[in-house]
Amino acid sequence: MRPDGRSMRESILAAAVQLFAQYGYHAAPLRDIARIAGIQAASIYHHYPNKQALLVEIMETYMLRLNTSLEHILKEYDDPLQRLHEAIANHIRMHTTYKEEFFIIDTEMRALEEEHRPHILSLRDKYEALLQELLRDGMERGIFRQSDVKIASYAMIAMCTEVATWFRPDGRLSVQQVITIYRQFIAEGLLVLMPDVSRMPDESAHLL
Amino acid sequence: MRPDGRSMRESILAAAVQLFAQYGYHAAPLRDIARIAGIQAASIYHHYPNKQALLVEIMETYMLRLNTSLEHILKEYDDPLQRLHEAIANHIRMHTTYKEEFFIIDTEMRALEEEHRPHILSLRDKYEALLQELLRDGMERGIFRQSDVKIASYAMIAMCTEVATWFRPDGRLSVQQVITIYRQFIAEGLLVLMPDVSRMPDESAHLL
Repeated sequence: MRPDGRSMRESILAAAVQLFAQYGYHAAPLRDIARIAGIQAASIYHHYPNKQALLVEIMETYMLRLNTSLEHILKEYDDPLQRLHEAIANHIRMHTTYKEEFFIIDTEMRALEEEHRPHILSLRDKYEALLQELLRDGMERGIFRQSDVKIASYAMIAMCTEVATWFRPDGRLSVQQVITIYRQFIAEGLLVLMPDVSRMPDESAHLL
Repeated sequence: MRPDGRSMRESILAAAVQLFAQYGYHAAPLRDIARIAGIQAASIYHHYPNKQALLVEIMETYMLRLNTSLEHILKEYDDPLQRLHEAIANHIRMHTTYKEEFFIIDTEMRALEEEHRPHILSLRDKYEALLQELLRDGMERGIFRQSDVKIASYAMIAMCTEVATWFRPDGRLSVQQVITIYRQFIAEGLLVLMPDVSRMPDESAHLL
């Protein structure tokens, strides 16, 4: 069933993802991870030195995957709106496909030991920087309105990440439908209905 | 210093907020909460039956406060845009003021025992319902574009909640500046620069 060490590592990692997501890092004992992976508690140390190593590998693997996919989009497409659309779709697809892994990334940062923190934070910074590059370029080319690039990137990441917390594959909307709604919401906001209102947001309250 | 039981309860609750936010619910021992509150570990039981009761009280208190403030806004204002602006400001102010309390609400739902979960979830549902009422009314009155009310409410909550994770009182932007940026982002999105683009988002990629 598991002829090589690599495959056993994967089983252990999958068990760790399951338990960290369900009970939290601190509440998930290493012996339970071993049990679910189907090995003796003592044998787990042949593959990972400790529970922290599992957390670091989960975070690193999926954050790298997210970054690589966004780098690919920035290389593949030149048009800012197309890049934005692809980035939104990619973020939502990754977070709904690897729901538990990204939930751990989002909730267990404080469980990282000091020595691992800078590396993992640098991966998060990298993703934000890529997204900010996309937004800045779109603003400079006159496609996106001038706004605070950092805050726009945080807002986008927050709303697209949160999809994973409520999305159900058997729910009323497909991933693609959710992506379409988010693209419109991010690109145009709630208000773009009447040109007069969209051009004069501050005065609109008095016009009604 | 603490002449009555109520004030000791507050000290215990403040200590719980501090430790739950710093280490997580499961990793925060009740004896440390007692120590920080300045009482004997055994005496804590005169005020709260167990650690779970502390978690429930933190969640209930601040979720109720959030709901009450949004209900107040819906009563106070009639114009949908004004209501939206006030709701965004209120959400961001509450989450930056009671940063640790809302961080606990957002990350420790799974730590709630079965018997307390329905009540706390109903408070969250209530807040979403109030926000959805605001959005639906704005769409029906032709101020907001027709879109998925539920998803728009989730997206708004996610992005405004996340401000608490990066906002620093001594940072480059004040709370009010952040609120202004978020209002524009939510109402108008990233793209509202050129009327042609905002009216034809799907074709714009080909026009450039």
